[in-house]
Amino acid sequence: MATRLEEVISLAKRRGFVFPCGEIYGGTRSAWDYGPLGVELKENIKRQWWRAMVTSRDDIVGLDSSVILPPQVWEASGHINAFVDPLVECLNCHRRFREDHLLEEFEERKGRAPENGLADIACGNCGTRGQWTEPKMFNGLLRTYLGAASDDSGLHYLRPETAQGIFVNFANVLSASRQKPPFGIGQIGKSFRNEITPGNFIFRTREFEQMEMEFFVVPGTDEEWHQYWIDTRMAWYTGLGLSADNLRLFEHPKEKLSHYSKRTVDIEYRFGFQGSEFGELEGIANRTDFDLKTHSEHSGKDLSYFDQATGERYTPYVIEPAAGLTRSLMAFLVEAYAEEDVATAKGGTEKRMVLRLDHRLAPVKAAVLPLSKTDALLPTAKNLAKELREVWTVDYDETQSIGKRYRRQDEVGTPFCITVDFETIDDQAVTIRHRDTMKQERVALSQVKGYLAERLIGA
Amino acid sequence: MATRLEEVISLAKRRGFVFPCGEIYGGTRSAWDYGPLGVELKENIKRQWWRAMVTSRDDIVGLDSSVILPPQVWEASGHINAFVDPLVECLNCHRRFREDHLLEEFEERKGRAPENGLADIACGNCGTRGQWTEPKMFNGLLRTYLGAASDDSGLHYLRPETAQGIFVNFANVLSASRQKPPFGIGQIGKSFRNEITPGNFIFRTREFEQMEMEFFVVPGTDEEWHQYWIDTRMAWYTGLGLSADNLRLFEHPKEKLSHYSKRTVDIEYRFGFQGSEFGELEGIANRTDFDLKTHSEHSGKDLSYFDQATGERYTPYVIEPAAGLTRSLMAFLVEAYAEEDVATAKGGTEKRMVLRLDHRLAPVKAAVLPLSKTDALLPTAKNLAKELREVWTVDYDETQSIGKRYRRQDEVGTPFCITVDFETIDDQAVTIRHRDTMKQERVALSQVKGYLAERLIGA
Repeated sequence: MATRLEEVISLAKRRGFVFPCGEIYGGTRSAWDYGPLGVELKENIKRQWWRAMVTSRDDIVGLDSSVILPPQVWEASGHINAFVDPLVECLNCHRRFREDHLLEEFEERKGRAPENGLADIACGNCGTRGQWTEPKMFNGLLRTYLGAASDDSGLHYLRPETAQGIFVNFANVLSASRQKPPFGIGQIGKSFRNEITPGNFIFRTREFEQMEMEFFVVPGTDEEWHQYWIDTRMAWYTGLGLSADNLRLFEHPKEKLSHYSKRTVDIEYRFGFQGSEFGELEGIANRTDFDLKTHSEHSGKDLSYFDQATGERYTPYVIEPAAGLTRSLMAFLVEAYAEEDVATAKGGTEKRMVLRLDHRLAPVKAAVLPLSKTDALLPTAKNLAKELREVWTVDYDETQSIGKRYRRQDEVGTPFCITVDFETIDDQAVTIRHRDTMKQERVALSQVKGYLAERLIGA
Repeated sequence: MATRLEEVISLAKRRGFVFPCGEIYGGTRSAWDYGPLGVELKENIKRQWWRAMVTSRDDIVGLDSSVILPPQVWEASGHINAFVDPLVECLNCHRRFREDHLLEEFEERKGRAPENGLADIACGNCGTRGQWTEPKMFNGLLRTYLGAASDDSGLHYLRPETAQGIFVNFANVLSASRQKPPFGIGQIGKSFRNEITPGNFIFRTREFEQMEMEFFVVPGTDEEWHQYWIDTRMAWYTGLGLSADNLRLFEHPKEKLSHYSKRTVDIEYRFGFQGSEFGELEGIANRTDFDLKTHSEHSGKDLSYFDQATGERYTPYVIEPAAGLTRSLMAFLVEAYAEEDVATAKGGTEKRMVLRLDHRLAPVKAAVLPLSKTDALLPTAKNLAKELREVWTVDYDETQSIGKRYRRQDEVGTPFCITVDFETIDDQAVTIRHRDTMKQERVALSQVKGYLAERLIGA
């Protein structure tokens, strides 16, 4: 039997949320394209994040920096030296894996570390046990070459995180805005990593979108702000529908912290992966003053802050809530997915699949469905769809039975189905069906827009 | 004296619309970052495009495909062989230029082609005339390497256009949506080109955002649809404020058409560049059935369409309106920029700078300004700002004189300034000042949200 996660992946592919990248050329496990419904869902998540983290706040501003930054940025940040992982190769089939991933997966599965290290671990590709090369360090930055020279003088890197684009613009933003610490700079954008072991659908891919915010605070207030952001981000996920039971915090052990971090806490979601059920949605790190200081040293530009009120100069500490957009998209899909038995008109029961997405996230807000394909109904239905489309993403569907059309909308999470029927001609009203309860209400045609507006606030 | 374009660039940098990429590390001419105001303006343009081109229409759906596609895509599309430009190098200073750009710039400036070709042209860097190497063909694709191998087996390319991601998903979208020709697939995303001669601010850069839509039509109807999209796209720009006087169409000469094109028409805007005043905003091409056919041949997957109604099978023709997002951002800024003499309270006149951006594009919709920094006014002003921020991007400013604050908002295009003054305490009303007319109206505090909502429809 298919797991819940497999059902969601199957639905996502079938209904055009997500397609394998380059499928007609054989595809790849390491990248995915977002179809008509996926791109709307993704945009809705971005909009909610941007509103919660940037525009609804007076202490955060936005930014959109470049993917390709000067290489000095990655020298200063430590990525050229420290963004490395140990790779091992199976001696039998030559597939390569990250050694740390192999060890972690074993531990998650068995509840204990392997006694003999890699010697206890079988290759996930061919099954051979304990036949591995020595680990070799491998840098996850993707290279590219700018300019007309054919040698290494044009070597640049695709950003593996959006954060550094924020740090190098710290002074620019300070002088262009009227912000002072505590304040933040938020950014949504694509990052790239040379993933050797991509997988778990859209969970680990070589290109992915991040929603990152760097919050600059007075040193000494950093621990308090760190806790504030852990709580605030957790509330964002539950506010948009993820169940608290499926979320957990993971405290990074002190000895495994990144070189810049004083404390890092991950928000994890119960995706239901094989082996390890949970996966990281977001990391919330106390990056201390590492980034601003290292960029000050490497660039020669002073990135400290002078507080005119207190007369003190200091380098702000940074709290970073860094979320994976496509991971949260996957979590919202998994959480929303439900199968239930519903009564049929004939007194039996049938299965219905429904995506219980928060209305703000639903890719299509309403579907207009003429009950029958007759000239008496079509113009009214089409006009209504056109009117609603000025404001929301709206589907129009006149094919097959009304029951089938309801099911099609249920499984992509459309909150409202609006049926234009033969009574509409007389009473100038339509039936609005609610996705979750399947209850139906009669609403005057002239009131439909207002009816939806009330129920789609914040969408 | 600074040109209008130079004034706009200066404003954009000073007020945080656009920063030079990696400025603290010396910057670059070939990439730019978008600051707090720039990112809001850019998002607003995207939202208007997406609404006009995707969600408000029943015949277009959206997509978001990957930046790194299988290399076979670029072989099939012709980019690996045909995406090349002739480069020449100045023998004196060794700066490289695109030969076609040098010749075009000469012709724009002098109104005639150079009689002796490159021999008549001086190097833009060192001034040496006519000392050039032979042209060498140069491919504009940016390379990157995926996977752990250290040889060329992992060679991939960053997309130079988003269009190919649409073509290779044509069959996926067809089966996931209920669309049939004529219908379109729209996409907004970043593309990358190895620009040897970047310049003119954000006009030509190595990474840039595109808003592209591929419209699939029945062969034989392509010329009519081509004209429809030329007209529709022109109306989009004028509808958002670009003056028809500053727009023109450029018909590509038949002999210079790209290998896939039957006819291409550019929409150009009068940016006011030195030499050539106009620059391309958008290219609208009739790509024929080139792309679907070449991907059918190279992938072995049939990308023709079978029309059940007529029983005919055909490969759709494609009309492509391909717009540059950051170019249109620059055009909207140039068009909106105005300097005018206004009367001062003392009977004199002073200069005011104002960005007359369409309300839908303005990065900040309203600013809340307490007349004085006293406890009597601040809580009311802050509460109002907080309430409005739930819906719009809103600024709050309590520093310096009210006149200076009005000017600050004018020059970034904020449509409404809302002043909380001492009368507010008694009459529970505020003064709303209009950016363009500078007229002021008294509006009840409780009515402000509704007042703005009426005037910001579609924003």
